[in-house]
Amino acid sequence: MRVIGIDPGLRNLGWGIIDVAGSRLSHVANGTCTSDGKADLASRLLSLHSQLTEVFRTYSPDLAAVEQTFVNKDAVATLKLGQARGIAMLVPAQAGLSVGEYLPNAVKKAVVGVGHADKRQIDHMVRLQLPGVQIAGPDAADALAIAICHAHHCQSAGHLSRAIQRASA
Amino acid sequence: MRVIGIDPGLRNLGWGIIDVAGSRLSHVANGTCTSDGKADLASRLLSLHSQLTEVFRTYSPDLAAVEQTFVNKDAVATLKLGQARGIAMLVPAQAGLSVGEYLPNAVKKAVVGVGHADKRQIDHMVRLQLPGVQIAGPDAADALAIAICHAHHCQSAGHLSRAIQRASA
Repeated sequence: MRVIGIDPGLRNLGWGIIDVAGSRLSHVANGTCTSDGKADLASRLLSLHSQLTEVFRTYSPDLAAVEQTFVNKDAVATLKLGQARGIAMLVPAQAGLSVGEYLPNAVKKAVVGVGHADKRQIDHMVRLQLPGVQIAGPDAADALAIAICHAHHCQSAGHLSRAIQRASA
Repeated sequence: MRVIGIDPGLRNLGWGIIDVAGSRLSHVANGTCTSDGKADLASRLLSLHSQLTEVFRTYSPDLAAVEQTFVNKDAVATLKLGQARGIAMLVPAQAGLSVGEYLPNAVKKAVVGVGHADKRQIDHMVRLQLPGVQIAGPDAADALAIAICHAHHCQSAGHLSRAIQRASA
């Protein structure tokens, strides 16, 4: 089972892909899609869409999750982020995948064990859980954390549904 | 010259298309792309993308403009709108068009003559400028107003650039 995590952003959109076999996680690839801050908005969104579509073509993930961005007090920044997030949600949907959404604190809790972990702790735990990984940057690290969070969530959901099947059998 | 205006929204995304010949405007088509509020976000964005792409395929506009949404105080609503707006910007960019952006007040000023016009005034002026038009709803009316605004803007810009060419000839 191959899982992609996406950390949306207009300038830097991080992505990270892992393979999941039972409880074993392994790193596949990670990177950052970028757009030129001097280009017009439509061109930037088009560029992010093309880059992320190419990632999906190359790695064919089975599951996808996107960070449910914390809404900050800067409405202009929120609108920009929303536009990038629209692209981050569209690309997996176009590939026929449903898209998991996680709040940043849920991602931190799944990866580090606490909801208030800082960037350094996340980076550290991602490296521990994906031995040998080379991380492209902070947005790619966040994206890998989102993928790990989604893998854990789907495993738990799987265990639960199997338990329910057993109970009702 | 065929102009499409788009009024972005996650539930209702209005579009309106006009033809421009000199200073004459004529109505081509208008409508609303909708998404099911009960569906998950990725599916809704995918649906809006498909519907709007179909509008572009059917009518092949030459120019496009999207409302530069007023950023309100509700951050959750702003994020939702941003996601829909990302799709509204992407589709014309995928068709190879650059995308004009106008603040709501600029649209009102171009269509009604004042920046603080209400919905009814906009609807009235759109009907006056596009005789015989049947308007699909308030979002489609706004979208037609955006198209009219963009047509005026491009005509002024065209007049300006021709004036500059004459001056420098």
